Amino acid sequence: MTDFTDKLRPADPQGPDILAQERSGSNVNNDQLAKHLLSRNGFLDRQKKILSVLEPIPIFCKKNQLNMARPDRYHLSLARSKMLRRLSLKHNWAIEDYQIAEYLMDEMSPYALQTVMFMTSLREQCNDEQKAYWLTKAENWEIIGCYGQTELGHGSNVKGIECEARWDPKTKEFIIHSPTITASKWWNGALGRTANHAIVVAQLLLPDGNTGKYKSYGPHQWVVQIRDMKTNKPLQGIVIGDIGPKYGYPGMDNGYMLFEHFRVPHSALLSKYSGVNSDTGAYIRPENPAVVYGSMTYVRAQIIMHARLILARAVTVAVRYLSIRRQFADRDAKGPGAPEQAVLNYPTVQVRILPLLATTFALHYTGEAMYKLYYGTRQAIEQSGDFSRLAEMHAASSGLKSLCTTLAADGIETCRRAMGGHGFGGGSGMIALNNEYLSKPTVEGDNWMITQQTAAYLIKRMTEVVKNHDLKPSDSVDVQLQAFIQSQQKQQNFSLDDDFALVQAFRHRASYLTYQVYEARIVQKLPWTDLMLHLHRLSRAYSESLLVSNFYNAIFEAKLDPPVDSATVDVLKNLYRLFAIFTLDISASEFLLSKALHADQLQDLTPRVLKLMKAIRPHAVRLVDAWSVPDYVLESALGSYDGDVYNRLFHKAHRENPLNLQTFNPDWKSEEIVMGEGEETARRRLEALALGVTGHEQMKSPRSKL
Amino acid sequence: MTDFTDKLRPADPQGPDILAQERSGSNVNNDQLAKHLLSRNGFLDRQKKILSVLEPIPIFCKKNQLNMARPDRYHLSLARSKMLRRLSLKHNWAIEDYQIAEYLMDEMSPYALQTVMFMTSLREQCNDEQKAYWLTKAENWEIIGCYGQTELGHGSNVKGIECEARWDPKTKEFIIHSPTITASKWWNGALGRTANHAIVVAQLLLPDGNTGKYKSYGPHQWVVQIRDMKTNKPLQGIVIGDIGPKYGYPGMDNGYMLFEHFRVPHSALLSKYSGVNSDTGAYIRPENPAVVYGSMTYVRAQIIMHARLILARAVTVAVRYLSIRRQFADRDAKGPGAPEQAVLNYPTVQVRILPLLATTFALHYTGEAMYKLYYGTRQAIEQSGDFSRLAEMHAASSGLKSLCTTLAADGIETCRRAMGGHGFGGGSGMIALNNEYLSKPTVEGDNWMITQQTAAYLIKRMTEVVKNHDLKPSDSVDVQLQAFIQSQQKQQNFSLDDDFALVQAFRHRASYLTYQVYEARIVQKLPWTDLMLHLHRLSRAYSESLLVSNFYNAIFEAKLDPPVDSATVDVLKNLYRLFAIFTLDISASEFLLSKALHADQLQDLTPRVLKLMKAIRPHAVRLVDAWSVPDYVLESALGSYDGDVYNRLFHKAHRENPLNLQTFNPDWKSEEIVMGEGEETARRRLEALALGVTGHEQMKSPRSKL
Repeated sequence: MTDFTDKLRPADPQGPDILAQERSGSNVNNDQLAKHLLSRNGFLDRQKKILSVLEPIPIFCKKNQLNMARPDRYHLSLARSKMLRRLSLKHNWAIEDYQIAEYLMDEMSPYALQTVMFMTSLREQCNDEQKAYWLTKAENWEIIGCYGQTELGHGSNVKGIECEARWDPKTKEFIIHSPTITASKWWNGALGRTANHAIVVAQLLLPDGNTGKYKSYGPHQWVVQIRDMKTNKPLQGIVIGDIGPKYGYPGMDNGYMLFEHFRVPHSALLSKYSGVNSDTGAYIRPENPAVVYGSMTYVRAQIIMHARLILARAVTVAVRYLSIRRQFADRDAKGPGAPEQAVLNYPTVQVRILPLLATTFALHYTGEAMYKLYYGTRQAIEQSGDFSRLAEMHAASSGLKSLCTTLAADGIETCRRAMGGHGFGGGSGMIALNNEYLSKPTVEGDNWMITQQTAAYLIKRMTEVVKNHDLKPSDSVDVQLQAFIQSQQKQQNFSLDDDFALVQAFRHRASYLTYQVYEARIVQKLPWTDLMLHLHRLSRAYSESLLVSNFYNAIFEAKLDPPVDSATVDVLKNLYRLFAIFTLDISASEFLLSKALHADQLQDLTPRVLKLMKAIRPHAVRLVDAWSVPDYVLESALGSYDGDVYNRLFHKAHRENPLNLQTFNPDWKSEEIVMGEGEETARRRLEALALGVTGHEQMKSPRSKL
Repeated sequence: MTDFTDKLRPADPQGPDILAQERSGSNVNNDQLAKHLLSRNGFLDRQKKILSVLEPIPIFCKKNQLNMARPDRYHLSLARSKMLRRLSLKHNWAIEDYQIAEYLMDEMSPYALQTVMFMTSLREQCNDEQKAYWLTKAENWEIIGCYGQTELGHGSNVKGIECEARWDPKTKEFIIHSPTITASKWWNGALGRTANHAIVVAQLLLPDGNTGKYKSYGPHQWVVQIRDMKTNKPLQGIVIGDIGPKYGYPGMDNGYMLFEHFRVPHSALLSKYSGVNSDTGAYIRPENPAVVYGSMTYVRAQIIMHARLILARAVTVAVRYLSIRRQFADRDAKGPGAPEQAVLNYPTVQVRILPLLATTFALHYTGEAMYKLYYGTRQAIEQSGDFSRLAEMHAASSGLKSLCTTLAADGIETCRRAMGGHGFGGGSGMIALNNEYLSKPTVEGDNWMITQQTAAYLIKRMTEVVKNHDLKPSDSVDVQLQAFIQSQQKQQNFSLDDDFALVQAFRHRASYLTYQVYEARIVQKLPWTDLMLHLHRLSRAYSESLLVSNFYNAIFEAKLDPPVDSATVDVLKNLYRLFAIFTLDISASEFLLSKALHADQLQDLTPRVLKLMKAIRPHAVRLVDAWSVPDYVLESALGSYDGDVYNRLFHKAHRENPLNLQTFNPDWKSEEIVMGEGEETARRRLEALALGVTGHEQMKSPRSKL
């Protein structure tokens, strides 16, 4: 296919020239910075190694994904999953390599649950005998597993699930049963079409003495074969299916599952911590249920580290494209010949992108701090049985999960909108990124719900601090709260020029909100529900103080490791300041009411933000380069490393769009659609398309009631 | 397909029972309110009439849409377009009926440009001769048209477009040419595969005397046949195609187009206002270019009225589902048997949904006010040549377009997130709604750019007001600014208990920000670009004052027409208060700095919001009922009128998901995907799927550079 467009090129200046200039105009050492940010577990080297394996393989090509029907997306994703598994054996990948392959593939696949939820549950919940049998099978991938907890009617409140497992003392079996439609398992990844085994979470029901009645002992886990190993059809007594299209994850078969008095043996109940005595039918109680908290913090640290890379991806696309895109001459420029400005030069664009660039670093240093906290706490528990830091760690991880995933989810869309029209197109690479990340504010603890846990901890500490003036502080929260009590609510007026005073301002405001809520709940005894808004705000304030203080500690207090040179550190310092002052500005009235700042200082926030953005602007391209997101992951004509935006956009449309292979009949008088197919063929084809699998009978269902 | 799930039903309480209780527990007269909100142009009656025509037609069934490949979505959309056109003739639909059919179909179709951009341009820009020829053809749909303005490299800055039309004095023709890739027309709806004619916007180039050079007279419009009327293939010298998948609008063929020295006759230049003398090649200048402003206000009033219905749709789904969904017992409830609460009872959920419910009404009354302003201004111009209100109207419409579409776009996503897991699923009906509406903050004037126009007008008026103390106010802006100047920046402390004082507080804050910007720009002469952030904030503040004052005027000052009973009006009053105080709270520090409020009042904002939400909560279901969004438009298992949430979600997955018709081979050692297809077949099929139209050669393009 050749035509006159082959000899055309974009109007000057050319994108690659612009990015070359941007890069040469900054003294940020982005290679050094990349090593500083991405050396954990050899990330950078592994990324390079795995990328070279994946990119040449045809089924790993991403360019046609947005054109496909949803069933085809699952087919492709299953094929890729299998290929990844084979590659990991062939190349002897470590688990970290495999994880990076999944990151690069950038698709939630039907095998994604196997190592995460399925094996982890088996490892953590099986007794030794069960582990020897099941974990071995899972680790050899002889069985494909999923994790069935969430139900159609029950998400966050796990205690409310309806699926039940009733002990039959006669046969020594559990009878798993779904009494209602809402008891249907729902959302469970890999369940819909793939997995042949599942961890099933159900209410454990045991006979209540000899009353003939049953008593619930709450949700427990069973490992259950759900499909035939040869045909892959559901076993008799189980109904399973894929729940259908979602916002994102077209390649994942999130499923539903119901049981009809389905029997499993006594050994199916995962029994490391608790169990049922098969002789007496008596319940065996767990000893210390608190141990799960630790690993939840680890998962949340991972979520934050993931959030920073996801946000870095969006910011990378935005910074590169907006450096290249020109629009309007400066309004104060003289004469009609003034050149159009790079869009990133406008403060209204900078204010949307550059604070998010700063946020990627804020998330990074807090993720690092959480890993450190996790390993420190685990060591304290294992070496000296010291559980004292667990509560603070859990409280911090809840609030931070909520705040960081919200920042990333909102940030992606902010970047996209800043890119105007092309941000809305498929060439942006933002569609799947945005749609899929929108799940994160909900999963692993809803962002509006888990903040209660953070607030509850802070209220508890404030109660102790107020009660006991000589309290020996048990953690950093106590220290802050004591400082606040000692300040006697005097006007503080922390200086905006002092980098550490910014940390103090955030701490003071969080402590003030803690005190307010403590007053309302503990002193005035107001209903918890009525305080929920305040609790949420408190959690946000506290989490922001952690982001700011972790950022400060990493840049100003600790030695950067691996090191970066001083010119680069200077830019990091400005990023810290921008993050802190921009964040402060959003909730300015809270800083005012807490007396951390006085009203005149508020007037000074926007000028400072503008000044910091001007200082950071020349380094923006190198800063996003440091995040080292490969073109294969960006999958973006706007954000590619080389900056050849318009050629890529055009050729993607002109050469790779299947719709352009067909010619259509635009005449409304004819029912023909594809030119030459004829009216009758078109009519039948289109009706079948619209009605899908169930045909016209479904149309007879009740119409809209107005 | 029958199985044991057929006899199951959801756990109690049943959704339909819950919604029945919600409806019986409120005295809002939603039928009356529906008539009050939706009687313009007989909307409600027309909606009922058209719905009964569309719903039984198979190709108008929406249930399979999320499963389809993108090319199929275009096929279906073209078929629907044609059907709508035939139906409109068969049933003798008025243009309003046709528009409602498009609203109900809820799909941007390849015919959507015909009546809007194509015919409107012909009507407004053709001279009489051209009109007789072209408009007749378009109105009879003998030709299918599109509108080609935006280019790959040029969006908002229309003056910067590169496509050129050079006058050839010898042949008396224009030579249309695309000199670069960035000159490619881009995004133009219906261009990609459908339209055979286009309005082409290009730089008019005329010979500059006898210098041999050409001079540009800026962008003008030509009507051009672009495809063969029989084959529908592009004419020689034109390259056209569809730009590929986007966030939304899969059924629309947004296109690209380049010309290679393509000749069109003199008569192709649309010449109502300006033109070229075909004898001398001289430019004929337009007389009054300001006339377009008026119709832009009309389009923006339509955008706001559209935004209110779109937001009402999201809020309808959220309110109904969140009334039904149960989660957790009240934390202060005694005993283990406490029932789970409706999610909408939690303040953390209310605060996300109920202010948006109030926003739908705020948008409505401002849309109505803009229509009134538009018709009043047009009458003043036509009857007495009075153009004086044009500038204010244009300034208001720019700021309001920006604010209202941002509120709606953000509001949809806020509703979606509040619905947790099910909000992320296809049964929510939110996917297309959200993805498509995200275009609105960008199109018809980018939301961050057009606010400059609003701010510029306010600066101009403030300059006049400051200069001339005895100025006779020319519009309501002058009145406000004068009041502010007269207040001498004294502390105001408007009472939060006084409904009109809320309006005054918003006006005072907007005037304060106007004065700040006036000072910076006019007195201190700061660069425009450095002020852009302030200009944007000013526009937002001014637009919020319009939303609040229009809401106030409609509920407290004017007689509601058609009338609603007093119990309903009382709820509307609370919605007004909630909208005003919630909006105020978001920018609290601006109200403080402007001295509209003092610091102690800020402490009182959240308790007031909580109290108002409690008062509105019992009426939420009836209030969304009043917006009368049919189930056919909602296409949502979560939001259907009857509340049968869980049965709908389950049956949609269990009966209508094509993926569930196939069985898969989950074994990683086999390349087979669909059970029984064999490894070789699967391998070839999947490679072709991944690589799309261009095959493996494209994979040889440069790899990711790290």
